[in-house]
Amino acid sequence: MASTSIAQKLAKKQKEISVSEFFERNKHILGFDSLTRAMITSVKEAMDNSLDVCEEAEILPEIFVQIKKISTDEFRLTIEDNGPGIVKKQVPHIFGRLLYGSRFHSLRQTRGQQGLGISAAVMYAQLTTGRPSIIRSKVKNKDVAYQVELMLDTKRNRPKVVRDDFVVWEKESGTRIEMQLRGRYVMGKQSVLEYLKGTAIVNPHARIVYKDPFGTQYLFERASEILPPKTEEIKPHPQGIELGTLLKMAKATGSYKMTAFLQKEFSRISSRVAIEILTKADVPLERHPKRLTLDEAKRILEVVKKIKIMAPPTDCLSPIGERLIKKGLKNVLGGLKPEFYCPPVTREPNVYTGNPFQVEVGIVYGGQLPQDKPIEILRYANRIPLLYQQGACAMTAAVEKVDWRRYGLEQRGGHGIPFGPAIILIHFASSKVPYTSESKEAVAKIPKIEIEIEKALRVCGRKLGSHMKRKVKKAKTREKFDIVQKILPEIAQKSSKIVDRKVPDLRKTITKIMNVVWIDEEVVFEKRRHKVTLKVYNYTPKGQKFNLHGIVPYENLDLDSCDPKPKEIKEDGKITWELKRIPTTEIGTATFELFGMDEDEYDETELYVSGINPTSVVGAEPLPGDWDLKMRPPTIEEIIEEEPEEELDYDEVEEELDDESHEADGTGREASEAG
Amino acid sequence: MASTSIAQKLAKKQKEISVSEFFERNKHILGFDSLTRAMITSVKEAMDNSLDVCEEAEILPEIFVQIKKISTDEFRLTIEDNGPGIVKKQVPHIFGRLLYGSRFHSLRQTRGQQGLGISAAVMYAQLTTGRPSIIRSKVKNKDVAYQVELMLDTKRNRPKVVRDDFVVWEKESGTRIEMQLRGRYVMGKQSVLEYLKGTAIVNPHARIVYKDPFGTQYLFERASEILPPKTEEIKPHPQGIELGTLLKMAKATGSYKMTAFLQKEFSRISSRVAIEILTKADVPLERHPKRLTLDEAKRILEVVKKIKIMAPPTDCLSPIGERLIKKGLKNVLGGLKPEFYCPPVTREPNVYTGNPFQVEVGIVYGGQLPQDKPIEILRYANRIPLLYQQGACAMTAAVEKVDWRRYGLEQRGGHGIPFGPAIILIHFASSKVPYTSESKEAVAKIPKIEIEIEKALRVCGRKLGSHMKRKVKKAKTREKFDIVQKILPEIAQKSSKIVDRKVPDLRKTITKIMNVVWIDEEVVFEKRRHKVTLKVYNYTPKGQKFNLHGIVPYENLDLDSCDPKPKEIKEDGKITWELKRIPTTEIGTATFELFGMDEDEYDETELYVSGINPTSVVGAEPLPGDWDLKMRPPTIEEIIEEEPEEELDYDEVEEELDDESHEADGTGREASEAG
Repeated sequence: MASTSIAQKLAKKQKEISVSEFFERNKHILGFDSLTRAMITSVKEAMDNSLDVCEEAEILPEIFVQIKKISTDEFRLTIEDNGPGIVKKQVPHIFGRLLYGSRFHSLRQTRGQQGLGISAAVMYAQLTTGRPSIIRSKVKNKDVAYQVELMLDTKRNRPKVVRDDFVVWEKESGTRIEMQLRGRYVMGKQSVLEYLKGTAIVNPHARIVYKDPFGTQYLFERASEILPPKTEEIKPHPQGIELGTLLKMAKATGSYKMTAFLQKEFSRISSRVAIEILTKADVPLERHPKRLTLDEAKRILEVVKKIKIMAPPTDCLSPIGERLIKKGLKNVLGGLKPEFYCPPVTREPNVYTGNPFQVEVGIVYGGQLPQDKPIEILRYANRIPLLYQQGACAMTAAVEKVDWRRYGLEQRGGHGIPFGPAIILIHFASSKVPYTSESKEAVAKIPKIEIEIEKALRVCGRKLGSHMKRKVKKAKTREKFDIVQKILPEIAQKSSKIVDRKVPDLRKTITKIMNVVWIDEEVVFEKRRHKVTLKVYNYTPKGQKFNLHGIVPYENLDLDSCDPKPKEIKEDGKITWELKRIPTTEIGTATFELFGMDEDEYDETELYVSGINPTSVVGAEPLPGDWDLKMRPPTIEEIIEEEPEEELDYDEVEEELDDESHEADGTGREASEAG
Repeated sequence: MASTSIAQKLAKKQKEISVSEFFERNKHILGFDSLTRAMITSVKEAMDNSLDVCEEAEILPEIFVQIKKISTDEFRLTIEDNGPGIVKKQVPHIFGRLLYGSRFHSLRQTRGQQGLGISAAVMYAQLTTGRPSIIRSKVKNKDVAYQVELMLDTKRNRPKVVRDDFVVWEKESGTRIEMQLRGRYVMGKQSVLEYLKGTAIVNPHARIVYKDPFGTQYLFERASEILPPKTEEIKPHPQGIELGTLLKMAKATGSYKMTAFLQKEFSRISSRVAIEILTKADVPLERHPKRLTLDEAKRILEVVKKIKIMAPPTDCLSPIGERLIKKGLKNVLGGLKPEFYCPPVTREPNVYTGNPFQVEVGIVYGGQLPQDKPIEILRYANRIPLLYQQGACAMTAAVEKVDWRRYGLEQRGGHGIPFGPAIILIHFASSKVPYTSESKEAVAKIPKIEIEIEKALRVCGRKLGSHMKRKVKKAKTREKFDIVQKILPEIAQKSSKIVDRKVPDLRKTITKIMNVVWIDEEVVFEKRRHKVTLKVYNYTPKGQKFNLHGIVPYENLDLDSCDPKPKEIKEDGKITWELKRIPTTEIGTATFELFGMDEDEYDETELYVSGINPTSVVGAEPLPGDWDLKMRPPTIEEIIEEEPEEELDYDEVEEELDDESHEADGTGREASEAG
């Protein structure tokens, strides 16, 4: 066979592949790789859409989910929302065409992003059962709803309307989808029920009703009437923009000058900054963007990397918040009483490739949690619980990279998933979550993201670590106390008897031996209030006068209840008492009350002391030097920075540039070195 | 704001997203999530194409790869092959258009499958450096080559030719691509060099020359002049076909009758089987496929599930083979001497969703391998080394599910990546590899595939296990020997002295105490031959006569060298000696010679015995009952089936149905329970 004819022959085989053919063949990429997962993915895609559209329309979501068993492996899913509805013309395209949607081109935190999900579910349904999906939608102020039976022409990636009609629907507005698909219904960690539970926790403004295949109805009642703050659409942040993207934007802009172009198309570029960039990049301010050369664009990006530009606006992001993180963790415990909730950490927003993102972390530890298992990791992205592909996720990789032995967990070699009684919740929020695949179950290991998650974990881990240290210190001191208080009186009594004198007052002697200030906290929940009492025992041989500092939830603090009156209370919840002098062997107290929280929402105050040698204090940490400089538990950030970080040199990690140690770990070594 | 207007407003935002816009935005999905990985991915995509096209044209591949540093983070990649070339008209489409290719619609084992890879690399290059890629291609018997500078219009997903021309090229035929892209060059586990090395190992018919950014040139010389057997394109296997696919095929077929349709469009359906299926499914044989109803199609699939249909043809697959697996493992060792190579396992082909696949596994153990680290896993899919996303891969999940403690490795709780001095190589070959994402770095956790890999691992693990047991048994017996041989003579001597008699011959006494038949193997490599001597020491008090069985590479066995003449030699390498009676305390031997292998290609023979109580034999296993029934090391399969498998009930695992235990493990638990 001559080579020409081979080239010719090969040429004849070259064909265009439609995106729907591609995904039909590769349905596992979209999250349909097993029957169980196909069910969860389908519910998820419909839920994502419903929650997104309700929030967009500022409607408190009411979502109804039902799964009916048709045969051994065939189920009918129904998902109905009270959203604004979809105009007739758009229905077939939204549900019956891949890569068609409204959120792809907008930069803000949404669940759906790609215009793939729900039509993929419709495609999977038709592929596995041959049946069309039925969509009904009603727009407000219309008399009737539009109902359509829909299939997908995968060769052309276009919707195929099997039948459509107008129907009466007793609903102001909303959308309902019914899909019949091959699936398997299971309970347990990776199940529809778990997914809905996880969703309800971080979306307390939604009311979700779920009827499972056995007819059991679950109600996840709305816990809050307040919609999460509406996320704003933003422009891309200049840091991390790719050269090609900049060139494309310059070609496409309506602006006539580079200054205007930069200001108009990017976030955080003021006129001053635009001029600074262009001047430093040696690009004429008046240059028409369409005539921007490759070299000029390159120079602009180089300048952008070097100069200070404000972080992106955060109103495109909607973090879960400390309260819900704690609630989420509590829910997973299912009644088990833990020993300690680490105060959740919410990092400042950051940027990768022009997209703002924010990381939150919470840890719960000890108590009745299982001791001898790997810790559990709960992953959320844009308020969606991620149930699959833990091993592929940047969140997992970050957990594996932290040396948890420092914070009191067991971890072979200081790498991998640690063992111990702990659950870690991580939330990644971004105007664009870089999922590893279209099934949206794992966040890609982009170095900048991984490092940011790692930092959050370390901050939270450090809190866990100091709790553990405090615990150990308290336990040791308590032991010493017990010994001293048991043995000293006996000796005293015996020697008194021998010398025939009165038994002396031993308190002073005990304080001399102990030489500590012991701070105890008591939290009592009564009449929907947390009554907090801080008791300061002076077991030193002299009087003590010092400052006690704490961090409390300011919005829940009853200012009048504070006794004694604090010297200072700040709106970030920092509270400072100038304690009166406590004579030796005596006790000082400080009390305050909190309102509007559930019983388990408060159990411990972060306590610090100043004006006293902190090494002789048990139950509080030394006040960090920059208590006043920072808005939030201050120290930690600094402590972290001070720690020698051999593996990571944060400064050297540029936009999307991957640190080599990260590379090395990304190898999948992460899994091998687990445990 | 009224809801109508919201629905209207939302409708206006709905847009089509072009597949290239989608992937430009989600470039991490394609394997461009970090600068380092972007380099490897680009090289990989070009290599895949070159190797595929050479094999298709039956040309021994000669591939040249060069990476030049342009600036800190900008590199120019050149990949050139001696393939058949591409006709002018197709060049822009193949390199400048996503989802365009020749392999998507054909079922056989190729590296590229999706028509995405190389154009994605071109897109990444232009996105990060703004530069077109330069492609040159020459078809045999043409005077000149066609050269084109190409960009990708991502809005339309069409190639944009910047410039093109005909140029003189001193090459019979071939293709060259030059891309300039932002990247980072690293050494180590995840590097271009490692990838090329891995590729060279399992593609010994390719000659690869690599010039790195420092100007160092690496030559991976061709180790074999034989192309891997050409893989045949096959039709889909009926088992595992989705209902929707069956219906679509029925609509599209040119056949007029169902019988013809089934025979023509599927593999392994004979006329007899077609009639059986249709009759059992109660579908008229003469029914025109276009008029097949949903219910009929369903019934057909139900029957197909139940009746016996031949496994798919395997000539669409190209396994690596035992020899190259061993070579691959050896290469990774880099000079470290291991203790034991488990004979590699090649499973019979299997099917998932109509696609044939085959699993191969090799393990190397002990010796100088590091003792206290997680084992290393080498993953290959269709002869491509997989370097990233180990945690997301079915191969890793399968390793984590095996209880390696049974086979002598350390593993906490019997789950997760085991620790110990071992490397496991896994190759997954299929006419369609279900990658978890378009970056093709991890195989999706499809239950049927996972189970098949698990089985292969257990078979190989079992071999490791019996090696270890043998080792322990030998060591223990040896110890006993040492003691007996040291102490007995002393006692004998002393007592002889006391009673003043001659020291007696102790050999008989020793055999009485030891009571074992000890088999030792000696392999000497001389004049490019392995001379194997099996020594049988009879340390029992009576004469022994029994059969010795071994498995040797038949094609390398010098039949004339066997001494004594074996009773039987089969073409699957099974060899049986009827040993002559060995008197007590004497030694029997069997020798044979192997030719045509490198020194390290043979080190140990799998030995079995029959006609003797196997518990008194050290150095060989009892002959399995079905030695004659199976083609390959027979037992193992049976042994596996006999093992109580609580987690997995293979019979219940249907096509693509996921066993629940699998589900549970797929949770990402896999990572958490590692170690």
